[in-house]
Amino acid sequence: MAQFMNTKEDIVTEAVDGIVAASGGKLARLDGYPHIRVVIRNDWDKSKVALVSGGGSGHEPAHAGFVGEGMLTAAVCGDVFASPSVDAVLAGILAVTGPAGCLLIVKNYTGDRLNFGLAAERARAFGLNVEMVVVDDDIALPDLPQARGVAGTLFVHKIAGALADQGKDLDTIAIAARKVISGTRSIGMSLDTCTVPGSPKEDRIPEGKAELGLGIHGEAGVEQVEFRSAREGIAAVVDKLALTMDHKTHIALLNNLGGASVLEMSVLLHELIGSPIAGQLSHVVGPASMMTSLDMRGFSVSVYAADASELRLLESSTELAAWPGLSEIKPITVEALPDGLTPITPLPSDHDETRVFLTDCCNVMIALEDDLNALDAKSGDGDTGTTLAGAARSLINAMDRLPLADHTQLYRAIGLELSQTMGGSSGVLLAIFFAATGDGASSGLPMREALKAGLQRMQEIGGANLGDRTMVDALAPALEALTHGLQEAAEAARSGANHTATIVKAKAGRASYISAKQLEGHVDPGAEAVARLFEHLAA
Amino acid sequence: MAQFMNTKEDIVTEAVDGIVAASGGKLARLDGYPHIRVVIRNDWDKSKVALVSGGGSGHEPAHAGFVGEGMLTAAVCGDVFASPSVDAVLAGILAVTGPAGCLLIVKNYTGDRLNFGLAAERARAFGLNVEMVVVDDDIALPDLPQARGVAGTLFVHKIAGALADQGKDLDTIAIAARKVISGTRSIGMSLDTCTVPGSPKEDRIPEGKAELGLGIHGEAGVEQVEFRSAREGIAAVVDKLALTMDHKTHIALLNNLGGASVLEMSVLLHELIGSPIAGQLSHVVGPASMMTSLDMRGFSVSVYAADASELRLLESSTELAAWPGLSEIKPITVEALPDGLTPITPLPSDHDETRVFLTDCCNVMIALEDDLNALDAKSGDGDTGTTLAGAARSLINAMDRLPLADHTQLYRAIGLELSQTMGGSSGVLLAIFFAATGDGASSGLPMREALKAGLQRMQEIGGANLGDRTMVDALAPALEALTHGLQEAAEAARSGANHTATIVKAKAGRASYISAKQLEGHVDPGAEAVARLFEHLAA
Repeated sequence: MAQFMNTKEDIVTEAVDGIVAASGGKLARLDGYPHIRVVIRNDWDKSKVALVSGGGSGHEPAHAGFVGEGMLTAAVCGDVFASPSVDAVLAGILAVTGPAGCLLIVKNYTGDRLNFGLAAERARAFGLNVEMVVVDDDIALPDLPQARGVAGTLFVHKIAGALADQGKDLDTIAIAARKVISGTRSIGMSLDTCTVPGSPKEDRIPEGKAELGLGIHGEAGVEQVEFRSAREGIAAVVDKLALTMDHKTHIALLNNLGGASVLEMSVLLHELIGSPIAGQLSHVVGPASMMTSLDMRGFSVSVYAADASELRLLESSTELAAWPGLSEIKPITVEALPDGLTPITPLPSDHDETRVFLTDCCNVMIALEDDLNALDAKSGDGDTGTTLAGAARSLINAMDRLPLADHTQLYRAIGLELSQTMGGSSGVLLAIFFAATGDGASSGLPMREALKAGLQRMQEIGGANLGDRTMVDALAPALEALTHGLQEAAEAARSGANHTATIVKAKAGRASYISAKQLEGHVDPGAEAVARLFEHLAA
Repeated sequence: MAQFMNTKEDIVTEAVDGIVAASGGKLARLDGYPHIRVVIRNDWDKSKVALVSGGGSGHEPAHAGFVGEGMLTAAVCGDVFASPSVDAVLAGILAVTGPAGCLLIVKNYTGDRLNFGLAAERARAFGLNVEMVVVDDDIALPDLPQARGVAGTLFVHKIAGALADQGKDLDTIAIAARKVISGTRSIGMSLDTCTVPGSPKEDRIPEGKAELGLGIHGEAGVEQVEFRSAREGIAAVVDKLALTMDHKTHIALLNNLGGASVLEMSVLLHELIGSPIAGQLSHVVGPASMMTSLDMRGFSVSVYAADASELRLLESSTELAAWPGLSEIKPITVEALPDGLTPITPLPSDHDETRVFLTDCCNVMIALEDDLNALDAKSGDGDTGTTLAGAARSLINAMDRLPLADHTQLYRAIGLELSQTMGGSSGVLLAIFFAATGDGASSGLPMREALKAGLQRMQEIGGANLGDRTMVDALAPALEALTHGLQEAAEAARSGANHTATIVKAKAGRASYISAKQLEGHVDPGAEAVARLFEHLAA
């Protein structure tokens, strides 16, 4: 599958330039492309301890996305999944380190350890005070003396970053960072491998399996496990974490490895906070993409038993969009449904004249069933007549429940009936028409104006304009002509309906998907229904 | 491909519960599962205008992720890609709407328009003041009278949200929202389709093609275009946008449709701010996943010519992690590389005894080349001898550049030479050893202690402990024994080296990948080199 890149040689420098350009001037980069790719804070005055991290690229937003107030001072970016050179790291250190010194935060991969380590030595030769901590939070291989550094690194960035921001000295920050590292545990799971730029994708994970305990460089997981659900996936991860967790309360960090959807990550969060370790989790960072493995469809969970002061450091604010913040996990507040979902049923009342009129209208629609269906069959699925006749029959059945003596309430009541009995968008639109007409009437509009207000609302919601080959083409002119009497209204409705037979480009409703040839010469069935109704009333 | 979900029936309710549980108590949901899935602010007092949005799920973080101070008041979540019911929308409206009224922000899809529209009518029947705006920012189909609502909806959420937060009245907010809608234009591009939960993935887009002008529900794009690079992809998108942009300065919103990696999104941003419309873009929101289409590997760009007051509303802060904030696009600051990348070269000085000693040591290593290679071939690639001999030859050649008369500087200088001439991790580790020894010496440690400090630093960086079958197994006991003289040191080195032949489980270095059988009975070549050197010096 293709990727949004230009060349694999330029991918890192272009990404870095993108990040710097969109930082609002808060970031800068060092000269030295293509080999030296260092992102630094633009406002850095060297009065505080500098925090420098980095490593191979492909883990974005780590690490350049975490450069800013309250987190890192500089990020040194290697090629995708490859350590930056000693010179690049040294450039980063020298660019930001002042009298307060510098802490290097390095993920435990040989290349990074060596290159950052040697760069530190060279910086020390200049008299700079440089400490280095190595993050090894991965528990995928419990017997490995050199555990990998993965997403738990973010705990170190945030806690050390907050301390540095407070002006703490290098020793204090290094000790705090080592404490966090010693207590942080992470493990990941993935349903698919990542796509390394310029390389073919390795299809290693068969359908129905997940890799557990994988690294962030596309290296294979420790084992392939059955994958049936998010719940089982979280259970497998949590099983491993639980073995390393004491009874203390922990902070969880839920990291998207890059390719899981935001929806999936929320489901994973739901499972995590319902998992066997949930009782030991007080807060969560994320879910968010923090330490990715390019586009890997996977996640990782990191846990750390932060003490009260560390919790405050994790909670402290930063403007960095890549840091999702820390949230307390709380029981879900479920609010009762509001009153009013059961619609207000108006008091039934009788009114002979209205009953007769309404029944008459309904009978017109019932009588039209076959004609309208036949018309609709020419350009649609032939059910307009049945839909309208069905609604008319329901309305006749509902007659005793209607407030026939209160015309203002009656429109709303008809709208409510139609919304409950008619399916499809036409039912909703007619319901909106009658409800809005009722609104207009109740706010004191004369009936004709109320009907026009109803039409306008229906057009707003439905999106149909005059000439769009809908019932509007008959109803709108009819309501306009109503000032001059029913006869004029009927004539206007008929003229409007007939005109729809010449409209070959429908712009709204289902007919908009039909070709011109199929439409030509056929009146729109909705418009025809309106015309027939007015003609009957005028007769 | 499998997804991180349990069942497609539960995916939305579980995701909603995940979001609410991790909101730190800031969000609640309404009772009414499974059909009514409404996320609301938990601290809402109805004194301000409520903003209600929503629609089908699958676009996370839209819309539940944008519920909170300064943005939405409630989000109504339908099934994946399906409008929520009228009842669900009404429940949302009723739950949060007070005397100040409510604005519904709806993306222009028929189902959403109708269901939100009818819910609005039903809410009005309760006397509530409800307005509705319909976002139609998609320009994929310029002739379509009903343009779709896509990521530009975020501009409306943020601007209306900030106004509501300020206590503005419903009319003011609705007018502002309609202004934003009328000026917002969006278009998307994707390299792959999305995976709808529970449905097989449609492989519609062939290799080398991208879909331009696609919607956010997996519907096909307007056209498939050649895709060769991020630059061409952005160019195709920008071409369409440019046609709709006047000369004003615009805000861009760069949205990840869900499956593009963070690295790719930064490259796209780089291309966007170098594109032909760059001169008209002052700020950017993102790149971030804001209005996704599940896991679609695609992006969209939205533009809006915000005026000064709208810019302030977009810039106003919100605690919502899903809103990435607005950043000014500025020219990239490129800082000059710091001095010091060219290592400090110590003043050369001569000292006969040192020259003889050092040359002697180097010659030992050169003489050992074949023996060490043979030993290494038993458990590795047989180049340890060549590597060390090469370094020794380089050091002899460098002799005239070294500060032979200044022993403190000499160690650092040797480290520097080794780091520049030896390849691989062993070169870096020896460079670190000598550099750190020099550090120790320059800080006043006696030579033996300085060497031990160098060893310790090398172990820290390299990660090798005693018993890990490395040169440390000879060097550490040798330096310990050095108090008693060279003879004792040589004996300790030999004993340590020989012991490595019995270590069949290497824990560091390349030998850790080799099986026990291949290692047994063979002394580690690095340890052997150390032993031979001490034996020579003691002889």
